[in-house]
Order: sequence, then structure tokens, then C-alpha cells
Amino acid sequence: MSTHEGPPAGHLPGEPEPVSPAPTLEGGPDELHRARAYLLRVAEPPAPALVAFVAQHGPVEAAARVRLGDCPPEVVKATEARRAYDFVTQDFARAAAAGARLVVPEDDEWPAWPLLSLDLAAQRGVAEAVPPLALWVSGDVPLGTVADRAVAVVGARASTNYGEHYAAEFAHGLAARGVPVFSGAAYGIDGIAHRGALAASGVTVAVLGCALDAGYPAGHVPLLDRIIRSGGAVVSEYPPGTPPARHRFLVRNRLIAALTEGTVVVEAGRRSGARNTASTAGALGKVVMALPGPVSSGMSAGCHALIRESRATLVSTVDEILESVGFFGVAEASAPTRAKRPTDRLGPDALRTYEALAVRRDRSDAEIATESGVPLRRVRALLPELEIDGFAVRGEAGWRRRRQSA
Amino acid sequence: MSTHEGPPAGHLPGEPEPVSPAPTLEGGPDELHRARAYLLRVAEPPAPALVAFVAQHGPVEAAARVRLGDCPPEVVKATEARRAYDFVTQDFARAAAAGARLVVPEDDEWPAWPLLSLDLAAQRGVAEAVPPLALWVSGDVPLGTVADRAVAVVGARASTNYGEHYAAEFAHGLAARGVPVFSGAAYGIDGIAHRGALAASGVTVAVLGCALDAGYPAGHVPLLDRIIRSGGAVVSEYPPGTPPARHRFLVRNRLIAALTEGTVVVEAGRRSGARNTASTAGALGKVVMALPGPVSSGMSAGCHALIRESRATLVSTVDEILESVGFFGVAEASAPTRAKRPTDRLGPDALRTYEALAVRRDRSDAEIATESGVPLRRVRALLPELEIDGFAVRGEAGWRRRRQSA
Repeated sequence: MSTHEGPPAGHLPGEPEPVSPAPTLEGGPDELHRARAYLLRVAEPPAPALVAFVAQHGPVEAAARVRLGDCPPEVVKATEARRAYDFVTQDFARAAAAGARLVVPEDDEWPAWPLLSLDLAAQRGVAEAVPPLALWVSGDVPLGTVADRAVAVVGARASTNYGEHYAAEFAHGLAARGVPVFSGAAYGIDGIAHRGALAASGVTVAVLGCALDAGYPAGHVPLLDRIIRSGGAVVSEYPPGTPPARHRFLVRNRLIAALTEGTVVVEAGRRSGARNTASTAGALGKVVMALPGPVSSGMSAGCHALIRESRATLVSTVDEILESVGFFGVAEASAPTRAKRPTDRLGPDALRTYEALAVRRDRSDAEIATESGVPLRRVRALLPELEIDGFAVRGEAGWRRRRQSA
Repeated sequence: MSTHEGPPAGHLPGEPEPVSPAPTLEGGPDELHRARAYLLRVAEPPAPALVAFVAQHGPVEAAARVRLGDCPPEVVKATEARRAYDFVTQDFARAAAAGARLVVPEDDEWPAWPLLSLDLAAQRGVAEAVPPLALWVSGDVPLGTVADRAVAVVGARASTNYGEHYAAEFAHGLAARGVPVFSGAAYGIDGIAHRGALAASGVTVAVLGCALDAGYPAGHVPLLDRIIRSGGAVVSEYPPGTPPARHRFLVRNRLIAALTEGTVVVEAGRRSGARNTASTAGALGKVVMALPGPVSSGMSAGCHALIRESRATLVSTVDEILESVGFFGVAEASAPTRAKRPTDRLGPDALRTYEALAVRRDRSDAEIATESGVPLRRVRALLPELEIDGFAVRGEAGWRRRRQSA
């Protein structure tokens, strides 16, 4: 694992500092963020009564009234143990130290659309469908962006080679097509899913059942760092310092389900957390998928049960996953997404020149210069280089963009 | 294979003659059987126009009119090539030599109920759902008996060890529970399914895409003999001498589907005969089941496609097969069978005493004596014995039955 992940950030002398993740609010958190940070700590999520109270009065008033105990009995009950403690300043200080920020529903980057599934499910009477009051996030990418058309790849910690192979293949294939891959950062399938996405230079998001700074799972701390440094994110609704706990993983599972369009269960025993994620995803109206496997493997038994009970769709390939979640655009768009990656090594002028090329018709170098804003002489020098590198094709009437092969 | 099957009947000196299968009608076939034998040969099944003509006029009149060409144009068209030839006498002679009989819809043993699915599907416009005009059968068992609550276990000829393992397990388990196992006698999964049922001393039925005396598949002739000798049957709608042909296997597949409650596809490539049987079974309103397997196995691809497309239910165990086909009687019978087994060694008084115990509340020994009709003194002697043997529990207010563990 260590060769995969590289050393933990900053541990080796001379190792470059990891890119500093996620700026916190300039001049410290505002009243809204402070109120939600307080609310996130004052009751153990999910806290449906508190969430309803906040929805009714707004976070600032709700926080003030919770502090005073001036709220309905169920809210008092959920908050009385912790309401006197005010850790808000410490929480933001610890989060900043860990490179994390608090994302609240009032923020532009709040993944409102995917999380709407929780509100809708709650209206249908799904008990566990309680929206988070806010989310602690590490990683530069806006949370709403990574939670847009994402897929979760989850499974057992006690994974087999078979499951690991397909977890890696699915995560790699999804990420390569530009689909963010969510998982729970656990050992086994979860970790392999994150790594598979990273191997495709894709975006992956870990949703934790403990604080971002809990250092858990210990063996995956370097992986979590790598996820953050690679344009992904690590997300938790637990305040800094919150240790992992079994019930928190189950509560966390609803966020993995809610933040994605669908969940692929790669391997799961008959009774397992992965099956819990799947059933939550189903209750939220998300697409649940499962990988079949040898009947002789206990780690496929949970997948087979989900499929047999029509609670999951069988998926064998990345294309079947995309078809199941209805990402038809993605399957088609897969070529451009992949095509972009090779251009990462192009300099800014070369990239602008490349982007000024049309796919279906030739453009003259003068046209390309006008389109790109790159001087004509530079365009003339760059085009043969782009040709050699496979990005441009010389045609009868000028230059065309070369389609990047699948 | 040869060690499994034993030598072909009668080939070795001193080998006992196989039990003479299936008596033909005393005094030779009657007019009805002769008419249907003629009709079965005069047109290549399935012959929907001829079947409709026979349904309208009865087999004897229909046969006479086909001979004369006095029938609707489609019937003339389907029969004109062969109508002048009369092989009826030879057919019965060859069938008798092969130990086979002709079973017609007018016979008591005709599997009218399962074959009704063909008529119903035909009414729904399913083109291939043409009932057979009669069936050639080898094997003493009445055809209607073996086709009552039967299950088909089918699959690819190019089977893998994985598929073969589960074909054997499923067939063995079904047969052990008294469920007749149908298959197509092909190499690979089919042959293993027949053998699995035989290994459980169960009943298995081979439905062929050629005549019973075609000696096909050559390597399975001893297996077919063994099926017949073991209380099973070999069935075909093709007259003696008909060679195998690709289209006949597809036509035969509808009979496997029709004669059973459900079909389990154990292994199948993406395009395969087993998938054809499955889709026919689905069209006939039968239960289609498929075994999942490693995604890396091409022989599971057809099964996975059937499951993914909701055209088959995933089955991993014999119990799941029984549940899917709705053989709850069979499945339930297995539990009591298990529970009963320990009590088999109880004497009649002990058994009646045991049966007089309640599961959820204590009964006094007087109550138990009244309930069981066993004298009180004997009940008092038996209860401690039942306790020692794990059948009874002493409670505060008397005795309770001890739940037999699953």
C-alpha cells in the first residue's frame, strides 16, 4: 500500500508540502457558519428534531435558542447534554489546521440537488433520511461539483481478490469517464475503489464516519491525503476530534447514498455495512447495483441477495453501471474527458492552440491564431509540435483537432 | 464418464438385461395412436396449421384428410412432401424395438396441465408456442407424473468446472427433494444435471431434439439408458430415425420449458441454446432462473444478462430454486423432514407425548396425558427421557417442547 500512496504528507524531509487544501472563510467564519458548526456538534447526527427546528427558525436563531434551551422538548432532549459547551472557535481552528472547511446549505457549493433525495425520502417516511446540518470538507474542489453525477463504489472490508479486481476496474473506469467515485475509505473494497479512481487521475471522495482529523482508518491516512491532493475531497458531518463508532458508519452510509446517483456494491456478506448502504440508497430512490460473483464466495452472498430480491441491478461492467444510473451522456462524453488528460502536459499556448482547432473541419493557422489569441508565429511553431504529439492533424485547408482514441 | 454410467446395456456378457421399458399398447396401437403417429411424421414440428386442423377435426379424421390432401392450403403446404408415405407401422415397430411408446393427448398420462402453457401462450400470440401432437417416450414412469412440478436444469455444452459443480448440486438437491429434473441430454451442463439427479436416486427426464433411437449424443447413449432404467424417461416428438438438427434443438427447447414449472440456466454464453430455452420459458409464463458466476467467465455472461434484464431470477441454492418456482410444499416439507428426523427414533408413546407438548407454554403432565392419550404414569416416565434426548424442556408450570434447531 505504501508504494501506492507515497509517504504521508510532510513526513519526509525535502518532500514538497502538500497543496494547502480548502481555504477557510476570510476573516474567520461568519455567524451562519458558526451557528451550523455549533448545531453540528450539539446533537449526534442524524438529529431529525433539531434539523426540523433549524429548518423552521434558520440556523442562527435555532443555535441561539438551543443554547438557551428555548426549544421543543425533543430538541432539548437531543441537545441538552452538549448545549452548554461552545467548541465553535476550537472546531474552526482545528479544521483549519487540518485544511478543512465547513460547507453549509447556504453556500453555493452545497450539494443541494443530490441531498434533496433525503428530504424527499423523509417526506415518504424514511426514518434515516435526515439531511446533514452542514459538512466538514477537505479538498479544493467544490462539494457540489464532485457530488454532481457521482457513483459510489462500496463493499466489504474482508474483500477477496475477485472483489478487489472489480472494485479497481469499476472505479478506474468511472473516474476515467469523469464520474466522481465516492466511497467510505474503509479497508478492503472502499480503499481499492478510491485507489482505482486515483489511478485513472480521476476524482474520488471519501465520506467518513468520524472527524476528518480522527486519523482513521490509520492505514488509510496517506490515502486520504492523496485523495485531497488529487482534486478529490474528504467529507464528514462529524466535528473535529470525533472518533469513529459503529453507529456513525451507518449514519455516514446515508450520505454516501445521498451524494451519489447510484451505489455499486462490489462485495458484501449477507449482513454487512455495504448492504446497509445499498438499502439506504434504495430508500432514497437512488440506483442500487451489485456485482455478481462465484456462489461459493461468502463475500458475494450479500450482492446475490440484493439482486435476487430485486433490490439491486446486476452490473458486470462500467458501461452497465453507467447505463443503470442513466449516465448516457457520460458514456458518450467519455471520449472528450479522456481526451483532455493527455493535454494536461501542454503548455498554456499549446493548449489554447489545441482548443482552437475544430474536430470536423480544417482551420487555417490565421483562423487558429484569431480564435486562440496566440500570436500567429507561435501558432505556426506549435501546430507541428501538436501534430507530432498526436493532438492535431494537417489537412488540405489547414489544421484539425485529432480525436483522442478511446 | 464411462465409470459413471456403467457399460451400455447388454454390451457386456453376463450383464443383466435392462428392465424392459414401457409396454406398447396390447394388440398393437389403436386408430388414435396410429393417426397421431402419422401426423407427427407428416409435418416437421412445430406445425401450427396442422395442430389447429387436428384440434378442429380430431386426429383420426385429420389424418385421413391430410392423406387425401383434403385440408386447408397451409396444412397441405406443411404436409404435402410426406403425406403419401405411411411409416406408421414401421414407426411403432422401431419404437417397440427401442422400448418406446407413443403418448397422445387422449392418454391419461398426457401432461395436459404443464402443456396448457403452450396453448395459453399461443393465444397470447407467442409464435413458437405450438403444442406437440404426441410424444414418443421411453421409460416406465407415466409422463404426466414426471412432468408434475418438475424443474429444468440446462446450460452450455462448453461448461466450466464451476457450472458443472452447481449443475450437479442443483440437480442432486432437487431430485433428493422429489422434484423431477428435466434437461436436454447434451454434453456439458445438461448431462451433469441428469447425472446429478441420478446420483440422488431421483427422477430425471431427457427431452431430445432427435428420435429416441437416433443414438445421439453418441457419448450419452449409456446415460440415456441409465435414465430410463432409473425410473426416469426420455422424450421426443420426433419419429424413430429422425436425426438431430440445429433447428430441432430450438423446437425441443419449448418442450423442456413447457413440461416444467421453471428452468434454471446454470451457464450460458451471451448467445446460446440455454438462453433460448430461458426466453421460451419466459414466453410460456414459466419461472426462469439463472446461476450467477464470476464476471470473468464467458459462460456466466448469458446468465448475468438474463438476470440484469430481469428475464431471470438469480438463484444460488436449491432452496432459492424451490422458492422461485413456488414449490413451498417441497421447501416446507424439507424443514419438517429435518425436524422430524430426530423423532423418527422415538417409540409411538414417546412420539405422542412429544407431540402433545406446546412450544410456547408449559403443560402439566396431566394435561399432556389427556392431550396425547398416553397414560399419566407412562407420560411421567417418558418426559425425563424426552428431556435427556433434547425433545422436552422442564419449565416452572410443567413441560414444553424443545425447538429443534434448524
